[in-house]
Amino acid sequence: MRRLREITNNGNIYVGLVHYPVYDRKGNIVATAVTTVDIHDIARSAKTFDVKSFYVITPLESQGQLVRRLLRHWIEGRGATYNPTRQAALSLVKVEESTEGVVRDISRHWNSEVQVVATGARSKRGNIGYDQLREMLSEVSQPFLLLFGTGWGLTEEVIRDADYILAPIEGSHYNHLSVRSAVAIILDRLLGRG
Amino acid sequence: MRRLREITNNGNIYVGLVHYPVYDRKGNIVATAVTTVDIHDIARSAKTFDVKSFYVITPLESQGQLVRRLLRHWIEGRGATYNPTRQAALSLVKVEESTEGVVRDISRHWNSEVQVVATGARSKRGNIGYDQLREMLSEVSQPFLLLFGTGWGLTEEVIRDADYILAPIEGSHYNHLSVRSAVAIILDRLLGRG
Repeated sequence: MRRLREITNNGNIYVGLVHYPVYDRKGNIVATAVTTVDIHDIARSAKTFDVKSFYVITPLESQGQLVRRLLRHWIEGRGATYNPTRQAALSLVKVEESTEGVVRDISRHWNSEVQVVATGARSKRGNIGYDQLREMLSEVSQPFLLLFGTGWGLTEEVIRDADYILAPIEGSHYNHLSVRSAVAIILDRLLGRG
Repeated sequence: MRRLREITNNGNIYVGLVHYPVYDRKGNIVATAVTTVDIHDIARSAKTFDVKSFYVITPLESQGQLVRRLLRHWIEGRGATYNPTRQAALSLVKVEESTEGVVRDISRHWNSEVQVVATGARSKRGNIGYDQLREMLSEVSQPFLLLFGTGWGLTEEVIRDADYILAPIEGSHYNHLSVRSAVAIILDRLLGRG
């Protein structure tokens, strides 16, 4: 069943990459720096699987400016003619200061509550599996926001506040994928038709 | 069925990242530069899905040296204590000058022919699907080498010489994933237990 769904309209699915609040390697709550390769890779994955928008979430004004400059280059500037496929992907990117801001932005378009789904390698106690979420995404006419953490992952508070916690990607006993790879795999599992 | 296989021993599966021969954006055959984020991300995906070795394939001596320096830092140098999970992933990386060299290296350990599987976004005429290859990988006691192209992808000749051509990742009509994301998705489809 998982493989039979056609990708036609995932207009209700949003991705958020959280730069604050997340943990650093010592467990402190920090704001991480934006990484341009994250933006390119995740935008390309989002475009591949027809995600509606990809939100880069950072409260730091300097980081927001950096993202906007990158977007201008690839959407309107010389990057657009150099590589139109990059333009198509990066056109999905939006910048917001907080997850609450993202939820407000999506709600405004939908007149419906946003279902927030937290992801993470540590969340052994994920309360929803891939097949179950895949089914919900395809049937429910409600917006879903998939949240991914940079650094050492989303904080406990963000995870607790989410409507759902997605089961971690179970590989071997090693769970240290890059966030870029994690987004690619999760979008494929939820939206791919492979 | 796809989801029931346990990851216990993928000791017969190898990944190769080809930097030559590949196409550039104009269709010329070139040697691309090594990108360190490719090596980190793909090593982490390889470790997650218990791949035996990840070969970085480049005929350029300067590029091979760059990779070896990176590996020394993370495996023996200060990186090893700073981030042991990175050490574990990068310990899977080997450098070879050519795909032929990789095949020889693997054959030496197996006393058996290596089955080469080419991947690519353009290969609409993939001659093997994910479920079929997944089954072969789990049952056959023979080594498999999955080849991924950098730049604008593996050349026609490399694809023609492969034993199998894996079906492309079908998303929407946009097929421009980063090679890092493509490796992550393909390893998950072939080896993940999600």
